[in-house]
Amino acid sequence: MTVLAELDRPTHDTRLTLATLPTPALLLDVTKMDRNIARLAGLLAAHGVTPRPHLKTTKTIGSARRLYPDAPGPITVSTLAEAEYFAREGGFTDITYAVGLDPSKAARAIRLVAEGVDLKVTLDTVAQAQALGAAGTGPAAFIEIDCDGHRGGLTPDDPALIAVAQALRDAGVPLAGVLTHAGESYALNDPDALAAAAEGERAAAVAAAEALRAAGFDCPIVSVGSTPTAHFARNLDGVTEVRAGVYTVFDLVMHGIGVCRIEDIAVSVLATVIGTKPEKGWILVDAGWMAMSRDRGTGGQAVDQGYGIVCDLAGTPYPDLIVEQASQEHGILAVRAGSAAALPDLPIGSRVRILPNHACATGAQHEAYQVIEGDDPTIVAQWQRMRGW
Amino acid sequence: MTVLAELDRPTHDTRLTLATLPTPALLLDVTKMDRNIARLAGLLAAHGVTPRPHLKTTKTIGSARRLYPDAPGPITVSTLAEAEYFAREGGFTDITYAVGLDPSKAARAIRLVAEGVDLKVTLDTVAQAQALGAAGTGPAAFIEIDCDGHRGGLTPDDPALIAVAQALRDAGVPLAGVLTHAGESYALNDPDALAAAAEGERAAAVAAAEALRAAGFDCPIVSVGSTPTAHFARNLDGVTEVRAGVYTVFDLVMHGIGVCRIEDIAVSVLATVIGTKPEKGWILVDAGWMAMSRDRGTGGQAVDQGYGIVCDLAGTPYPDLIVEQASQEHGILAVRAGSAAALPDLPIGSRVRILPNHACATGAQHEAYQVIEGDDPTIVAQWQRMRGW
Repeated sequence: MTVLAELDRPTHDTRLTLATLPTPALLLDVTKMDRNIARLAGLLAAHGVTPRPHLKTTKTIGSARRLYPDAPGPITVSTLAEAEYFAREGGFTDITYAVGLDPSKAARAIRLVAEGVDLKVTLDTVAQAQALGAAGTGPAAFIEIDCDGHRGGLTPDDPALIAVAQALRDAGVPLAGVLTHAGESYALNDPDALAAAAEGERAAAVAAAEALRAAGFDCPIVSVGSTPTAHFARNLDGVTEVRAGVYTVFDLVMHGIGVCRIEDIAVSVLATVIGTKPEKGWILVDAGWMAMSRDRGTGGQAVDQGYGIVCDLAGTPYPDLIVEQASQEHGILAVRAGSAAALPDLPIGSRVRILPNHACATGAQHEAYQVIEGDDPTIVAQWQRMRGW
Repeated sequence: MTVLAELDRPTHDTRLTLATLPTPALLLDVTKMDRNIARLAGLLAAHGVTPRPHLKTTKTIGSARRLYPDAPGPITVSTLAEAEYFAREGGFTDITYAVGLDPSKAARAIRLVAEGVDLKVTLDTVAQAQALGAAGTGPAAFIEIDCDGHRGGLTPDDPALIAVAQALRDAGVPLAGVLTHAGESYALNDPDALAAAAEGERAAAVAAAEALRAAGFDCPIVSVGSTPTAHFARNLDGVTEVRAGVYTVFDLVMHGIGVCRIEDIAVSVLATVIGTKPEKGWILVDAGWMAMSRDRGTGGQAVDQGYGIVCDLAGTPYPDLIVEQASQEHGILAVRAGSAAALPDLPIGSRVRILPNHACATGAQHEAYQVIEGDDPTIVAQWQRMRGW
């Protein structure tokens, strides 16, 4: 596997600035990203637990290099195409694919293992275990555990847990361990409730591992993780690794949960003013939902941020200015309802930066990150994103 | 300008079927698309008005060829990158860019005109008119008209209308005409209300054109359009062209407005079952919001379709089965609340097709359309989409 050294070299047009970059454009503040990465690494080191960052948020080797300058991981991915990208183009070889396996994708997973990748897949049924084994010698498998009723997985006391482990053994597939995700933690915003969610996540994973061990199965990895629980966990006894993704860049949903400050949010969308409607209190910009995504994740939180918080080019929010509405290529900026703040004077051609609700969704709307540094930000690199399945 | 004849040739892997195509994948039923195109063409022909289809929905030369086998348009686009794509790669030369002009993009617009494209841009301020003229000899400009308070544009009685026309004249920029969009029609679902919205759109555009003509300006084009008003207009006197986009493929939002039947929806997402939770009434598939988009446009309609209606491979909906929840790569299928329908028996590895809320947003999540035909659908072509700005 070749690490493409070219990727470490700047690929951007060094003449471009935030004043001249074509808009809308996706910005990533690498100083904030590095700080966010160091923060969680410090928290987990205190627990003696390894992070396994989820790269579904940024989907770029550029950000993976900030986590691991020399590969090989450990990393987590949400699609097999991501696994192929990080392995074949980035040299990453310690990869967990954390979405339940479609049996027809087993052959692709096996191919990556044949290329030298320590790929681990995820499943929770006997049918998937049998299909994986029947497809050939390939990845080890996690059994997915349901810790909070959020999505897939087996509860630790489900008899199917042992049946799936037995099916893996019968099919000749190594058991990687157990894996769970406290997705319900996204609905919380209280430190004690978040700590309780983290403890529920830990307890479910450890109970499942113990049940497997009691039944005579090795269960080497006990994998938990979500960005909120990773930051609020008080005890990780029995856990061997933590997966979290959006923490590297954060977003307004994470701010609403209480995991980060506004100034920790490392991603923003650069936009240009293309219209003004002072009589309605509106400013129109060229970042609509195509640039921001349709994600309205703060809509159910205590503070609804519309389609994002509007900042100046240095990244400082204008008082109470949000993207109130979005159509495909238009964003409508307005002062938050109930605020006495004045609409800022932003004539045609002015530029703003918009902090997004959901960094994973906003990132997916763009080809690349324009990587910026400094209080008067300059563009220091361009990181291409991958996409597709 | 070269028309790439290769694009008319099949580029797909002819061995792939809906049973073997990697999922999630975006499907486009070209038979339904052709029928939708013919329907609006017939309606507008009865009014003696030309359609100018908006290609922001499908963003592919493949669909443009179904509208105009030999180019050159007329077409509408939502970004300059689309204009460049359809002109340089598809040979389309009659193009309206219907989003308010960022002055810093004037040079790109002028370049396209220099390449032989009859590009028309959109603006509504003196500042934009002056900036466009100062950038050089280039496109003609529409003045955007506000017919319903939805977004940008000037009301027909706004004195700025004449001031902008005068600024264009002073700057040496030809006035293309007036352009409006009845965006508020998306909130309606009654034929009479939709007809009234269409009349409001027509009346505003015609009044603005008359005001310009009375002030001594030529106003050759009177451009209106939205998919709902285009289908419910009873009178288009004074209108010269109608822009509509999503009508070529339709979606659940358009069905909720009453513009199309479920069986007219030409786009769907192919997905595979990757988990079952019968005790919760859930089936998990590998199409989450990354494949469907975060668009919840039916959430405010009379019938909330979740993240989409679930169909069998022939495209027939399962009774009351919708995508109730979505995370990045997981969709949770469930029977609609209040329905007595049974959860269908869809074991691991089964495949379904999901009709989306919003075809523009779902399309943007994918690299390409897999083009299908027939009641037992076969894949007959692959159409790459463009993206970016």
